[in-house]
Amino acid sequence: MSPHLSRSKRIHLSLLSVLLAIAFARLHAPIPVFAQTDPLPSWNDGAAKTAIVAFVRTTTDPTSKNFVPPSERIVTFDQDGTLWVEHPMYTQVVYCLDRVPAVVKAKPELANVEPFKTVLTGNLEAIAKLPMSDLEKILGATLTGMSVDQFRSQVKHWIDSARDHRWKRPYTDLTYQPMIEVLNFMRANGYRTYIVTGGGQDFVRVYADKVYGVPPEQVVGTAGGTKFEYGENGEPYLVKDPKLLLNDNNAGKAEGIHLMIGRQPYAAFGNSTGDRQMLEYTKAGKGARLAVLILHDDAAREYAYGPAQGLPETKVGTFTQALYDEAKKDGWVVVSIKNDWKRVFAFDR
Amino acid sequence: MSPHLSRSKRIHLSLLSVLLAIAFARLHAPIPVFAQTDPLPSWNDGAAKTAIVAFVRTTTDPTSKNFVPPSERIVTFDQDGTLWVEHPMYTQVVYCLDRVPAVVKAKPELANVEPFKTVLTGNLEAIAKLPMSDLEKILGATLTGMSVDQFRSQVKHWIDSARDHRWKRPYTDLTYQPMIEVLNFMRANGYRTYIVTGGGQDFVRVYADKVYGVPPEQVVGTAGGTKFEYGENGEPYLVKDPKLLLNDNNAGKAEGIHLMIGRQPYAAFGNSTGDRQMLEYTKAGKGARLAVLILHDDAAREYAYGPAQGLPETKVGTFTQALYDEAKKDGWVVVSIKNDWKRVFAFDR
Repeated sequence: MSPHLSRSKRIHLSLLSVLLAIAFARLHAPIPVFAQTDPLPSWNDGAAKTAIVAFVRTTTDPTSKNFVPPSERIVTFDQDGTLWVEHPMYTQVVYCLDRVPAVVKAKPELANVEPFKTVLTGNLEAIAKLPMSDLEKILGATLTGMSVDQFRSQVKHWIDSARDHRWKRPYTDLTYQPMIEVLNFMRANGYRTYIVTGGGQDFVRVYADKVYGVPPEQVVGTAGGTKFEYGENGEPYLVKDPKLLLNDNNAGKAEGIHLMIGRQPYAAFGNSTGDRQMLEYTKAGKGARLAVLILHDDAAREYAYGPAQGLPETKVGTFTQALYDEAKKDGWVVVSIKNDWKRVFAFDR
Repeated sequence: MSPHLSRSKRIHLSLLSVLLAIAFARLHAPIPVFAQTDPLPSWNDGAAKTAIVAFVRTTTDPTSKNFVPPSERIVTFDQDGTLWVEHPMYTQVVYCLDRVPAVVKAKPELANVEPFKTVLTGNLEAIAKLPMSDLEKILGATLTGMSVDQFRSQVKHWIDSARDHRWKRPYTDLTYQPMIEVLNFMRANGYRTYIVTGGGQDFVRVYADKVYGVPPEQVVGTAGGTKFEYGENGEPYLVKDPKLLLNDNNAGKAEGIHLMIGRQPYAAFGNSTGDRQMLEYTKAGKGARLAVLILHDDAAREYAYGPAQGLPETKVGTFTQALYDEAKKDGWVVVSIKNDWKRVFAFDR
């Protein structure tokens, strides 16, 4: 760059340098967002918010002894009860029940066979009493046997059209706004966000990118096998098989993380005993690690269940007192929805 | 930016703008590298090189009808025979045989039990005659039963110290330089490079990042289960289990891609019948897709085996004439090591 340039050229270059500086700042990921604005505006100030922000700060500060290189920044999130509502019933179970009429239409001989007969009555009390073996038959009939592409379009159609009973909204509206902020905050700081769910991997992959910003390859879930087959014109496709490969719950979450990611997470978020081993596995790593449990203690704005801390018993997302005590003893963060979240959903207020 | 700045400040800013422009250009990934320099210098000019470069160009050009958004740019690579040497024996099998003395030292009662007894003799002819069931016993004893961390350090130690018999070099030197260039070229153009190998997922993950620039979460391989356990002080860890979860060969490669990635690749590279379904699955997608097979036809610089095109028969990396014919019929690229590669290894010439 010569000093003999005309004045207008120099001005032009100076303006350019400003534009480039802005572009440079925007491109220079990860951008530390905590300094300028509140990265978690839907969280009340308190121990939980402070712990999350402090963890991100210390692990992304190159001068910190807890610094984590970007390639190792992995955080895992349970889905049901951690990223979106799981009561009164896991959303995927609602999907499976909703699919039964279509399954029976394709195979009319099932209309008089249990458990399909009971599900077709729509009698929720009777459906709730079906034994686990019957529920498994419904899952098998609605989640397997079709091609991967057919399944994807069936789920997509349902996700776009179904409404929950309490809020009369799409299920994907029932994601927790404070957790969406955590996902964004961690990604803005170079963390790769994984979902590690007991729900079906193929099911969650259909909407996870749009709803959570989590691409298919970062969804780890309960997974069945597929079978490679050829169509009429020799075109290959995959058919969903009933064989269970990964039961991504309890110890299966740690095992699934090893299988699918091959790295120990630096942070993990869950809400039930099904997440215990994932949190233990995360905390067992060296350096700063963050383990977070969401306690559902807000019946007014969402639901209240435990039975930790005297909350009502539940079979959906059980959070035992033993888990609560382990969390307190081992320095995990317990988030009270009632006290820690300013709002629960994006549509609140 | 004001025009009233001193001359020295203006010069300073102009210099800054140049530096920022350079930084901007470097950060503005993906960088199209084909315009400036030859991205594949170890390839001879010819149909194979042209096809690879043209594929990358058309799928990354925003004005092309074949443009692929960065999030969908997935390319999969077989390892043995595609990224590194697989003859006369798969490297991981050499590892397993080399581990037998340590296994017997830990369990002396195995010294007089077959197949360990034969392996301990070091008689390669006798070892080569062991039936598959015996080989499986060796794989089981050397690849399972230890913690994930122990296995990682065992493999790392071997990878750092073992030497192959022909070139007297570390096995990781026996990667194909032309393929390293393809990996780099595709990554520079926004493709995420996955290894999809019949080899053990945990084995390949130990060195894949260092050797190929492929991180653990992008290695899909034959995978056994793990078991979550607690140590003496309550610390959790994972133990490698003999249960096979994914046999990542033949149809298992397409199934493994769905399980681990959840997206159909846009390009895939292989060298044997074990890669056929992966290539078919890749080509079955819409838009421009690239399927490449490496033909080992260069006994002087590497090895020659088929039996396609009259090359010698082999059980290690079989490339049948039927596969060759399918490739030619369906527009796959067949790479002749003899004719298409200027050099095979980085240490050549």
